[in-house]
Amino acid sequence: MATLKSKFSHLQSRDDTGFSSNASGRFVHKNGMPNVRRAGLSNPLQKYSWYHTMLDLPSWKFILLLVLGYILANLCFATIYYSIGIEHLTGIDKSTPLSKFTDVFFFSAQTFTTVGYGRIAPVGFLASMVATFEAFLGLLAFAIATGLFYGRFSRPQAFLKFSKIALIVPYEGSSALMFRMAPYKNNLLTEAQVVLTCAIDDPDEHGELKSKFFTLKTVISQINTLSLNWTVVHKIDEYSPFFELTKENFETMDVEVFVHLRAFDEVFCNTVVQRTSYSSHHQEIIFAQKFNKMYAPSRRQKTTVLNLDLIDSYTPYSPYSI
Amino acid sequence: MATLKSKFSHLQSRDDTGFSSNASGRFVHKNGMPNVRRAGLSNPLQKYSWYHTMLDLPSWKFILLLVLGYILANLCFATIYYSIGIEHLTGIDKSTPLSKFTDVFFFSAQTFTTVGYGRIAPVGFLASMVATFEAFLGLLAFAIATGLFYGRFSRPQAFLKFSKIALIVPYEGSSALMFRMAPYKNNLLTEAQVVLTCAIDDPDEHGELKSKFFTLKTVISQINTLSLNWTVVHKIDEYSPFFELTKENFETMDVEVFVHLRAFDEVFCNTVVQRTSYSSHHQEIIFAQKFNKMYAPSRRQKTTVLNLDLIDSYTPYSPYSI
Amino acid sequence: MATLKSKFSHLQSRDDTGFSSNASGRFVHKNGMPNVRRAGLSNPLQKYSWYHTMLDLPSWKFILLLVLGYILANLCFATIYYSIGIEHLTGIDKSTPLSKFTDVFFFSAQTFTTVGYGRIAPVGFLASMVATFEAFLGLLAFAIATGLFYGRFSRPQAFLKFSKIALIVPYEGSSALMFRMAPYKNNLLTEAQVVLTCAIDDPDEHGELKSKFFTLKTVISQINTLSLNWTVVHKIDEYSPFFELTKENFETMDVEVFVHLRAFDEVFCNTVVQRTSYSSHHQEIIFAQKFNKMYAPSRRQKTTVLNLDLIDSYTPYSPYSI
Amino acid sequence: MATLKSKFSHLQSRDDTGFSSNASGRFVHKNGMPNVRRAGLSNPLQKYSWYHTMLDLPSWKFILLLVLGYILANLCFATIYYSIGIEHLTGIDKSTPLSKFTDVFFFSAQTFTTVGYGRIAPVGFLASMVATFEAFLGLLAFAIATGLFYGRFSRPQAFLKFSKIALIVPYEGSSALMFRMAPYKNNLLTEAQVVLTCAIDDPDEHGELKSKFFTLKTVISQINTLSLNWTVVHKIDEYSPFFELTKENFETMDVEVFVHLRAFDEVFCNTVVQRTSYSSHHQEIIFAQKFNKMYAPSRRQKTTVLNLDLIDSYTPYSPYSI
Repeated sequence: MATLKSKFSHLQSRDDTGFSSNASGRFVHKNGMPNVRRAGLSNPLQKYSWYHTMLDLPSWKFILLLVLGYILANLCFATIYYSIGIEHLTGIDKSTPLSKFTDVFFFSAQTFTTVGYGRIAPVGFLASMVATFEAFLGLLAFAIATGLFYGRFSRPQAFLKFSKIALIVPYEGSSALMFRMAPYKNNLLTEAQVVLTCAIDDPDEHGELKSKFFTLKTVISQINTLSLNWTVVHKIDEYSPFFELTKENFETMDVEVFVHLRAFDEVFCNTVVQRTSYSSHHQEIIFAQKFNKMYAPSRRQKTTVLNLDLIDSYTPYSPYSI
Repeated sequence: MATLKSKFSHLQSRDDTGFSSNASGRFVHKNGMPNVRRAGLSNPLQKYSWYHTMLDLPSWKFILLLVLGYILANLCFATIYYSIGIEHLTGIDKSTPLSKFTDVFFFSAQTFTTVGYGRIAPVGFLASMVATFEAFLGLLAFAIATGLFYGRFSRPQAFLKFSKIALIVPYEGSSALMFRMAPYKNNLLTEAQVVLTCAIDDPDEHGELKSKFFTLKTVISQINTLSLNWTVVHKIDEYSPFFELTKENFETMDVEVFVHLRAFDEVFCNTVVQRTSYSSHHQEIIFAQKFNKMYAPSRRQKTTVLNLDLIDSYTPYSPYSI
Repeated sequence: MATLKSKFSHLQSRDDTGFSSNASGRFVHKNGMPNVRRAGLSNPLQKYSWYHTMLDLPSWKFILLLVLGYILANLCFATIYYSIGIEHLTGIDKSTPLSKFTDVFFFSAQTFTTVGYGRIAPVGFLASMVATFEAFLGLLAFAIATGLFYGRFSRPQAFLKFSKIALIVPYEGSSALMFRMAPYKNNLLTEAQVVLTCAIDDPDEHGELKSKFFTLKTVISQINTLSLNWTVVHKIDEYSPFFELTKENFETMDVEVFVHLRAFDEVFCNTVVQRTSYSSHHQEIIFAQKFNKMYAPSRRQKTTVLNLDLIDSYTPYSPYSI
Repeated sequence: MATLKSKFSHLQSRDDTGFSSNASGRFVHKNGMPNVRRAGLSNPLQKYSWYHTMLDLPSWKFILLLVLGYILANLCFATIYYSIGIEHLTGIDKSTPLSKFTDVFFFSAQTFTTVGYGRIAPVGFLASMVATFEAFLGLLAFAIATGLFYGRFSRPQAFLKFSKIALIVPYEGSSALMFRMAPYKNNLLTEAQVVLTCAIDDPDEHGELKSKFFTLKTVISQINTLSLNWTVVHKIDEYSPFFELTKENFETMDVEVFVHLRAFDEVFCNTVVQRTSYSSHHQEIIFAQKFNKMYAPSRRQKTTVLNLDLIDSYTPYSPYSI
């Protein structure tokens, strides 16, 4: 190993990425989150912001959680009322123990949701006290649910589709790394800026492999209105860390390109960000001819149609080409 | 066509507008949204952010949607209770099938809104179970409605009126493109910045007509407090793409001016944006003498009065003038 | 008038303030809002953003409005139920017409708030239908109220007290215009920036008096943490429009100083702004010796105490001084 | 004292920190809030923004406050109903005065939460009127609670742990002041910027000790992604106010280092800030060899593990070293 020499000594590497030069595995997951696990802290709950967690849950899990919480809360309160004694509730169907419990359960639900039909109603002190508390808790629970719903759907998001792969294609006599993105929802992103950083394994002075980080320049790094797709182009010239790297180099070296996009959403009037990464180790950087076009005029020439299904469509090198 | 020559070779065109140089039709709608349609995606719902859609609906449609959703939900639940059997509900008026169904419908509404008078109340297991679920659903629905209402009325908006037309008027020995805007609500916009971009059809090296994009410089591009109207002035000098274009040129060439305004709303403490476009193809760029004044001192000279109805008022060239 | 000459020809005046040079009266009210009235627009409601209006109302007016709205809504619905016929409601006290109406009113309130005791309950189709609608409306009304409450108390505000007066005091061999501000609540403002602009009447080329606008430079224009009071100092040197203006000049000329403060609130994590203006015409610019100190160490020297009542306290020129 | 001479005359001190040079005690508390007390204002409530206060309360106090408010409100209303006369309520258990009062209390709770079973219901005018008002108040209270809950959990926070101590360690032939921070929750901070300011007591021209403020330069002051820990390094060279200060100097002089961190939270899409301070007077600046490493590769080398418990772990000078 000691004979390895840095290929990038002429380039300035970055030490402000926040990533460690001897980290393990991928730096950034495909969805843009850093590949780091947190340990320590006696109380594991401290490691999670429950609000961030609730906002990150997929919709069906979030709804499921609410439903389960509702059922659980009612089961708890039903048990409490049942153990207090059903004689403190009027209108209970006392035919079987099960019918007793289900009626108590329904009473609990009617209290928690503040429906309160009154067919079943608390009479004694204890049952009334618990019901007083349950109704309060129910309203607070729905207050929190209201906040969570709003937090979830008002959360600023870019709604951008990145191409799953980045291509290395011939470009202006040399070659270029390209990937593209397209907005896929009815939001309007403007003043989009992209920043590319790459990590490459490189021997340090002791010949040990360490990750080095470089900024990748892009031909256009800011775009005014993101209405069509945007193909980001990094030209591979002598100032690029990819200069003179072959397809084999990319396969053996662990190259990872981090993409950071920042734009302004004109509906939310807020800055939104989205991240992704392309790792040569995971076959996400491909040598090919070009990306295929994604948009065309509409039939009546009145508008432009963007076909989102074509975002990963590219022309590979034919087996007969060089 | 091959004989056409670019009129703008001395000017630097922009390639970072995000618009395609061979797009079809108007680039930007009058309301500022880009003229692009999205296709592809197997699931068409993916193309819409329902929250953005809800925020964009006019008020009456939004309210109508809520009312219809409420009626529909109650019809569904009424059908469910009815098919479970009305013997599981106390207090139903059983005189006619219709009275049965309407009473079941009212019971559903009383459950969904958590009013729960109790005149009609569930007794059996199934009906109670459905009611338990309906009350929960009702509260969640109102939680979501709360969020939507808040999202709708707290949405940062510029509340600016743009003049429907832009004028080309004599200006300092040469001419200038002018349009104006005025705030029409009781908000306070400050640090307003305007950016003008224009698109003009121009032959490329093969003589084919392509859209070229240019930034239009403005005499004043930022204004401190937007309390009166603001007339934005682009002087047509030799650095302007409109230099020496005649009225006929504007009519035959497809000229479109995009306006992007960004300001700070001091009530919302948020950045707000508003966009519009003026297209010569749609007769929105007019040769005239001047815009008429929009404001005057109040009668007692204590304040200044801004008349919003005059925003499009201008003095045309008299038929006898040149 | 034609003999008047501009005093400020050596200074560059600003034309991007957004104020008109021939406006009437004060430019900016003491609370920072521009002194402009909007006219025109066939529908006067268009001139108001009801959300901005609701946010600007003082608390007691806002609460009063909610209470009045509640009573009014119930009176309306009570009238509707009454005209439908009280025979469609069970449990009404039919002893007198008044007791009938009050019971109907209470039923309406119980429906609108979704309490629904059930002592009074709808029976017929029409009354049930109206109640179904009223409960829905009630919930929506509280959804809107929830949003308004949140909008009101989460509204970013600077909570700064400006001194009511600005002083012109001796300063470093010359003089200076000073005013001060202090945070008066438990928020934390950082990176506070101040911008001063002044308007002075000055004859134009025809000798007519027009307002001219100048930026006033401040000795320190940005401060890191606004924890104590901040005295903003504009040194009156030869680059100041106030250079060599006497007390009499200030009294006869209409001088107005606009203050625009922008800071970052670390609790809301939002930019906040506050504005005020000092008008010599309204005796808000005073010649004096100095502002008195506002803060002192605490008795035990453990902290610093800021006395907010002293914000306007200054030392006037004694009648015997020059 | 008059013989004291400034050690820092070659350095430019800052006068825009917003702190007074003759303040008492610590400038900034460990949690980042300035050490200032506000006095004056006739109405002490004016000194508090209740919303800021509610957002700053620890969770258990906030919940407790809600519960107490709920109980108190019901006690008040129960007293009102009781004094109106329980004959205006149906279904009250009149066996003992206590049972009367508890039943009235439960009725109040059922009204406030809008449960409204109806077992107890108002009959007369007065009781109905009060209930009408209480239900309204209850809903408004829950509207406010909803807003507060949302305000509390959507409040942008950095969720950063700072090391409790700063170290002065050998660094590149000289020494450096270091401290570190690590994100401890599942949020993602990017574009983190740190600003260090220090306060040191120094004699002024009269030999009196005054606090002087200096900016401390950091080797890296902005970091792209805050996924691992970040050790901020201030190199103590001749441009540092700490140059040639000994351990004894630090102990006798009152040195305080303020840390201001600003980052972008990609989940909230908002700027977040966090502050702390290190005071030599409080033994928070320590001479030592180095901070121990906080992260290591996971067992399978697939990810990096950050151990948050090690944030304050450092290697002290052994008693045998110099």
